[in-house]
Amino acid sequence: MKIQSQKELKRRISKLQHKLRAKDIGAALIIQNADLFYFTGTVQGEYLYVPSQGDAVLFVSDNNKRVQNETPLEKITTVQSPSELPRLIKKEGGNSPSRLGLELDVLPYKTTVKLQEIFDVDKVSNITTLIRQVRMIKSDFEIEMLREAAEKLAVVPNLVKEHLTSEMSELELSAIIEQGLREKGHAGFIRMRGLNNEIPMGICTAGKQAISDINIDAICAGAGVDPSAGIGASKQKIGLANPIILDYMATHNGYIADQTRMAIAGSASDYIQELYDKMRYLEKQLSQYLTPEYSCDDIYQQGIELAKELGVIDYYLGSANHREKFVGHGIGVELNEFPFLASGLDFKLKAGMTIALEPKLVIPDIGVIGIENDYVVTEKKPKKLTTADEELIIV
Amino acid sequence: MKIQSQKELKRRISKLQHKLRAKDIGAALIIQNADLFYFTGTVQGEYLYVPSQGDAVLFVSDNNKRVQNETPLEKITTVQSPSELPRLIKKEGGNSPSRLGLELDVLPYKTTVKLQEIFDVDKVSNITTLIRQVRMIKSDFEIEMLREAAEKLAVVPNLVKEHLTSEMSELELSAIIEQGLREKGHAGFIRMRGLNNEIPMGICTAGKQAISDINIDAICAGAGVDPSAGIGASKQKIGLANPIILDYMATHNGYIADQTRMAIAGSASDYIQELYDKMRYLEKQLSQYLTPEYSCDDIYQQGIELAKELGVIDYYLGSANHREKFVGHGIGVELNEFPFLASGLDFKLKAGMTIALEPKLVIPDIGVIGIENDYVVTEKKPKKLTTADEELIIV
Repeated sequence: MKIQSQKELKRRISKLQHKLRAKDIGAALIIQNADLFYFTGTVQGEYLYVPSQGDAVLFVSDNNKRVQNETPLEKITTVQSPSELPRLIKKEGGNSPSRLGLELDVLPYKTTVKLQEIFDVDKVSNITTLIRQVRMIKSDFEIEMLREAAEKLAVVPNLVKEHLTSEMSELELSAIIEQGLREKGHAGFIRMRGLNNEIPMGICTAGKQAISDINIDAICAGAGVDPSAGIGASKQKIGLANPIILDYMATHNGYIADQTRMAIAGSASDYIQELYDKMRYLEKQLSQYLTPEYSCDDIYQQGIELAKELGVIDYYLGSANHREKFVGHGIGVELNEFPFLASGLDFKLKAGMTIALEPKLVIPDIGVIGIENDYVVTEKKPKKLTTADEELIIV
Repeated sequence: MKIQSQKELKRRISKLQHKLRAKDIGAALIIQNADLFYFTGTVQGEYLYVPSQGDAVLFVSDNNKRVQNETPLEKITTVQSPSELPRLIKKEGGNSPSRLGLELDVLPYKTTVKLQEIFDVDKVSNITTLIRQVRMIKSDFEIEMLREAAEKLAVVPNLVKEHLTSEMSELELSAIIEQGLREKGHAGFIRMRGLNNEIPMGICTAGKQAISDINIDAICAGAGVDPSAGIGASKQKIGLANPIILDYMATHNGYIADQTRMAIAGSASDYIQELYDKMRYLEKQLSQYLTPEYSCDDIYQQGIELAKELGVIDYYLGSANHREKFVGHGIGVELNEFPFLASGLDFKLKAGMTIALEPKLVIPDIGVIGIENDYVVTEKKPKKLTTADEELIIV
């Protein structure tokens, strides 16, 4: 099955080549799965060689024939060892570049040094930012993939309404939701760029558990089943009247949507209901700023202003002592794509960006209260991708 | 919750220090989650500094207080930026080493170069092999963790008996099994060392789908939900009379057990039943060689001999043209631990190694047939950890 058209992939490669030329990088060698998938439509290749001009060549291992059914790219060459790469590249009409571009934020040191020796280059250049910049602006095809991924997340409130009890553990509820998402075609794992960015298919965390410290860039990621995991649902009972964060990802052909909804077993106090309503209002208001008129920082600051107006600033994105520095992030073939709606990030949004907006409150002794929706930035007003019911689910 | 005792962790650190001294490496800085968990009992730390002599220091970020509940280590220091590390290490009585040991097989190039600058060292040494050698020999505590993980996998045949139909997809069956394992405390993700070693909680793959080429070190890993994933259950129907590979992992406090069982919807042909019985026999016979008398290569070669005797050599671990070079692998806090029961690997097994043994046949036009069990190597005979029923499940 070929997911992407040849035209789509060639356009992506051509954008990268443009950036390589601007930085005077002779060629890129792409190795990490998310990037490989983005540029080739498959993860069965070993290396994608992208010269700054000319055709890209996908190198595959001797025995992997599946790649031809999955990539629309034409130049596919068998490689048994990376040491053959310079010779094979020459054979395909390419040159050994004097500056080689690699994904230096994720490529292990050992692999990098070996490639440096093989290509006999003194210096390697980090092409990660270039790749992430290309990936940041989505095509109509990619927006459609994300729309389909987001649509799958509509099942979450339904599953929670059907199964939630105060007696079950976060993990039991999460297992049910994960099964539902998996049946809809979830890949079973989530790509989040960076070492140690390990994450399950989603997070179900209730009450004070939601405030667990976590070693990952997020406000709230759950306590996990045990200290070895440290993220996701825990074995703790959900309990009565605890606000439950339901932050789940769905995948569709490699594209990841990200959504948060909330539930309560028993009844919601007026206080919790009021805070949740304020966050729904804040998120909706803030989403209107997702246009090319505003910068990432503008949107972050606007969120702060809204939180002040609503009287929730003390809890907004943490606390005054430790407030998270972002209120949203790009989504695509990785969960943590450009752009980050982060404090101090001055660049303006552009049409084609896809963003998960996730304002959340951290209320001591109560838990986390918030919502998350996905949007596409267009020239005019943002288009919402997530469709799940937003009411506080009370069972 | 503290999983490991202080004594246990200190013994592990002391073993690593012994190896650091033997290689003349002044200190190790450990960063990757599996290694961090192994030496500290938590993944909430940022850096574990292990001098070749003296106390290890765990550095945690400013705002993560959970680490103190999870690690029994005493020296815990707050760090806001890696650039503070040399100063803070000095303060704790340590020296800036002239040779710094890092996990260079997984640590990104960019991170490594930055640490090299911060510590002002010309050369960094790869300590991955040293760490994996320490981890290779399990303590009684670790064996107990793996025994509990393996015990959870007994649920797989029960779930399959209850739910399997020929009309369901591999993905639907997998989603049910994954839910069952998750309820038993599965972390929701699997640690497999190395870039691009992405894997769901297990693999359900039926008939010819099981022969899909995959870009990961395994005989059979499924086609995945789409080309972006490329591994795990697919959306294909299981169908009648197709042999179904059920290769699942369970985790318990970070320790990963790995098991394969087989099922068929409808009825098994005599041929398939016979091949499966041969593989059960082969695996049982081969497991008896898991003692300190034999080397990894001895066991690999013995498997080849048994496959010849049983008349299945043409399909054994692939085909004569492309036979996998290993028949088993270590298990522990990562799925791909030392030792690998690999061709040419001359070193002998030792008591305390924990191994998943997985002989499999690749039968063209039919699928994959095999079994996988986990064992502990002892001075005398190996002890089996997996307890699930081994009969071919026919529903």
